[in-house]
Amino acid sequence: MEMPTRSWWGWGWAERALTEAECLQLGGRVKPYLALDGHVTPPPQVPALPRPRLDPPSALEGVFKADPEARAGHTYGKAYRDIVRNLCGTLAHPPDWVAFPRSEDELTAILDWAAAQEAAVIPYGGGSSVVGGVEYRGPDRPVISLDLSTLDDVPDVDETNLAVRAQAGIFGPALEDRLRPYGLTLRHFPQSFEFSTLGGWLATRAGGHFATGYTHIDDLLQAMRIVTPTGTVDTQRVPASGAGPEPNRLWLGSEGALGVITEAWVRVQRRPEFRSGASVTFPAFAGALAATRDVAQSGLMPANCRLLDPLESYLGAGSEDGGARLLLGFESADHPVVRQLDRALEICRGHGGRLSEKDAVGRWRGTFLQAPYLRDGLARLGVVVETFETACTWSMFEALHEAVVEAVAPALVTCRFTHVYPDGPAPYFTVYAAGERGGEVEIWDELKRRVSDALTAHGGTITHHHAVGRDHLPWYRPGRFGDALAAVKRTLDPRGILNPGVLNLH
Amino acid sequence: MEMPTRSWWGWGWAERALTEAECLQLGGRVKPYLALDGHVTPPPQVPALPRPRLDPPSALEGVFKADPEARAGHTYGKAYRDIVRNLCGTLAHPPDWVAFPRSEDELTAILDWAAAQEAAVIPYGGGSSVVGGVEYRGPDRPVISLDLSTLDDVPDVDETNLAVRAQAGIFGPALEDRLRPYGLTLRHFPQSFEFSTLGGWLATRAGGHFATGYTHIDDLLQAMRIVTPTGTVDTQRVPASGAGPEPNRLWLGSEGALGVITEAWVRVQRRPEFRSGASVTFPAFAGALAATRDVAQSGLMPANCRLLDPLESYLGAGSEDGGARLLLGFESADHPVVRQLDRALEICRGHGGRLSEKDAVGRWRGTFLQAPYLRDGLARLGVVVETFETACTWSMFEALHEAVVEAVAPALVTCRFTHVYPDGPAPYFTVYAAGERGGEVEIWDELKRRVSDALTAHGGTITHHHAVGRDHLPWYRPGRFGDALAAVKRTLDPRGILNPGVLNLH
Repeated sequence: MEMPTRSWWGWGWAERALTEAECLQLGGRVKPYLALDGHVTPPPQVPALPRPRLDPPSALEGVFKADPEARAGHTYGKAYRDIVRNLCGTLAHPPDWVAFPRSEDELTAILDWAAAQEAAVIPYGGGSSVVGGVEYRGPDRPVISLDLSTLDDVPDVDETNLAVRAQAGIFGPALEDRLRPYGLTLRHFPQSFEFSTLGGWLATRAGGHFATGYTHIDDLLQAMRIVTPTGTVDTQRVPASGAGPEPNRLWLGSEGALGVITEAWVRVQRRPEFRSGASVTFPAFAGALAATRDVAQSGLMPANCRLLDPLESYLGAGSEDGGARLLLGFESADHPVVRQLDRALEICRGHGGRLSEKDAVGRWRGTFLQAPYLRDGLARLGVVVETFETACTWSMFEALHEAVVEAVAPALVTCRFTHVYPDGPAPYFTVYAAGERGGEVEIWDELKRRVSDALTAHGGTITHHHAVGRDHLPWYRPGRFGDALAAVKRTLDPRGILNPGVLNLH
Repeated sequence: MEMPTRSWWGWGWAERALTEAECLQLGGRVKPYLALDGHVTPPPQVPALPRPRLDPPSALEGVFKADPEARAGHTYGKAYRDIVRNLCGTLAHPPDWVAFPRSEDELTAILDWAAAQEAAVIPYGGGSSVVGGVEYRGPDRPVISLDLSTLDDVPDVDETNLAVRAQAGIFGPALEDRLRPYGLTLRHFPQSFEFSTLGGWLATRAGGHFATGYTHIDDLLQAMRIVTPTGTVDTQRVPASGAGPEPNRLWLGSEGALGVITEAWVRVQRRPEFRSGASVTFPAFAGALAATRDVAQSGLMPANCRLLDPLESYLGAGSEDGGARLLLGFESADHPVVRQLDRALEICRGHGGRLSEKDAVGRWRGTFLQAPYLRDGLARLGVVVETFETACTWSMFEALHEAVVEAVAPALVTCRFTHVYPDGPAPYFTVYAAGERGGEVEIWDELKRRVSDALTAHGGTITHHHAVGRDHLPWYRPGRFGDALAAVKRTLDPRGILNPGVLNLH
């Protein structure tokens, strides 16, 4: 079987990009809602790039690549904004070189050399950033994209303590492959799972797929190792500690600006053997909302508790009854969970919910992983698409939801909850707007501005699990905490070489 | 009914201190294990203190107290080391004044004035520190103890989002009193519950009483407000966020060195209505250990999962069968939990466990809250007592346990688990050693040194839920993270007035 190749311009595997016929079919489904011009932009060629502005040191031979496809593929992440720019060949600041260190020594040498050259070093993770987290923006300066995919070993699987030590460059499926023979799983499945790395998850505080419990990578992290331009950090491998502010938390979410995460001990679990799930339909969204809140506050801890609003139910789950849907799932490696499901269904019935399907979760997951490919197809059809994910308290949600819909009217807005907490949901909005060929980036920026203003004005965080990157910077307002981070930045990265600009750190 | 008074020299209420007769009775129980001289030190008188070295500004009239009992009571926390020094009247660095701000404006004015005077300001919390967290140690300098007990309001109880906003100076029981009419509880019960404050819990990352799930104050915190010498911080009130490193985590565990926490939104829960518990006896400690690990890794999430070694079972739970005991308890506000208990008992039986008692948890709790008063009684009998709490992986525990016992032989060592995680337990050791009148502090320091060396040499953290304070400083080795914290300290508290010395921050 031939290995698939990563798409330099679009999501995931190049071979999975929609064909022109598939794009047109997708257009047929979209046309009732949005005007289309009937044109399908073809997959782009790698554009010509300027010569690298500096030469890597001979001592690091074999570490750097400068072929156009590698440089083009490492210019942007995979936001809609990035895809559109790739489709029309606008590569603003391609990296001069892509570095693939094969050891920590090589990594340190890269950082030393880059500091001497005043080059920016941008940790790339798996390159799946949808927030402008892995591209350079700023004054002219040499740029190195740092790709750790060559550091993907799993040196320790600890069955006694249910933990695994892995290098930061390992991708989701490879890590799961290493755990499967032991009957273990990290059970961390962000939508980017196939195309993101352990180090990227940690640096961006990735939210996993599951609705409650240990789903954020933050909770799965036991200890990590970070190489900074001024030294290396190893946090202690303990199940918990009260010794001062939690060191891991300084680098979780640091987006590569405070050091390069090279390896981590993460908590794994035995693979679930018991599963119970169902899909519940609610005629009114208010009832669905109340039921979801009650389930979130019940302590039942469902693995899935994914509320889809009526439009999302129709577009994303094929529901045709016009109601909202709640997908519920429980999992355990130790004991049956059917009673937990029964109790959750009882709560739903109390709010007008009706069992519509057993085990609807599996089908949903297929749609979920396919979504970014469809997003690329829509981009080629000229549709502007963006997703927004936030978290707010339950009492803020309705006003926030309304504000988002109003902010982009007449664009189409769907909403689902990806995670639920006792104190509030994590709403995920998808916005579809009619594009204008050549003007997509401007339209997208305007949508981004309007929705982000609405989210932050109504008590939402600017990101629940996608990191801040560069696209969300205007809405990241850490106040005095930002001054604290800046002080840390000056101490750990005094030359300001690491991912300059993210989190407003230079 | 007369209000009880706080003991200036010992734990808790002055009226609850053991009488001489009770001390002698306790001595009778201890005598088989440790030599006693038969003397009982009486409760001490407040010693004479030097005149305050500075005068507070007239604009802050009514805020400062300098009566000897207030100053003496705010000189130390409530570690064994502190009690012994109080018993013999050794008050090394009593605060010149105790400040009781009645508003945030007054707090800011206190900090401004202290900075101008180069005075140290030590946030006192409830004064229950057992790690030297609230005493001044260092070169001669005016010292202000900052007591927020006058800031104890609860301005908001939010039933929709299960959260409450409270001022930092509120004590545990007062907060629970405010929640009870709503059927809510914070459900955070550290051993110091009656004598510690919300602000103190946050600043020291208090571990609650419960074994798994949301028990650490870290997990219960939604947002907080912090006054620093250079400005005020408000973190955002959201259920979760992925926007950069988590701001709350910089101040959680900051021990008053990076700002004064003035109020917080914390997550509350509906009061449990369903409870199932049992006590299981194991003939062999190894079996008990394996069972406890399996329960911790089962996903059953017991509220209590308190493993007592044979000596702790005998001394702490009145068990006379010579075996180890596991106290199991499940709680829910929403659904019966008897099946969870049944499954946990099934796991225990698989490791040789035998059901010994239903609902043993309640009785244990009485012993738990009484323990610090007994500790003071032992101090008066001349016994040296200290507790050590740590967390390590499961596979490190046996060697760590052995090392602790060896480090202090022939002193008596008991062990229990206060918390359990899938990747390891939080062992809690109590050490009882024969004292020498007048030499208790030296013996205690030596015990502390030996056990702390053993803990850190065997993969344990120096503190799981008591903070670092000053007593644990030699074993707090944050590496480059410490440099990061020092940079933050210089930014937020450039004059170094806040709790100088803790976390090695000056």
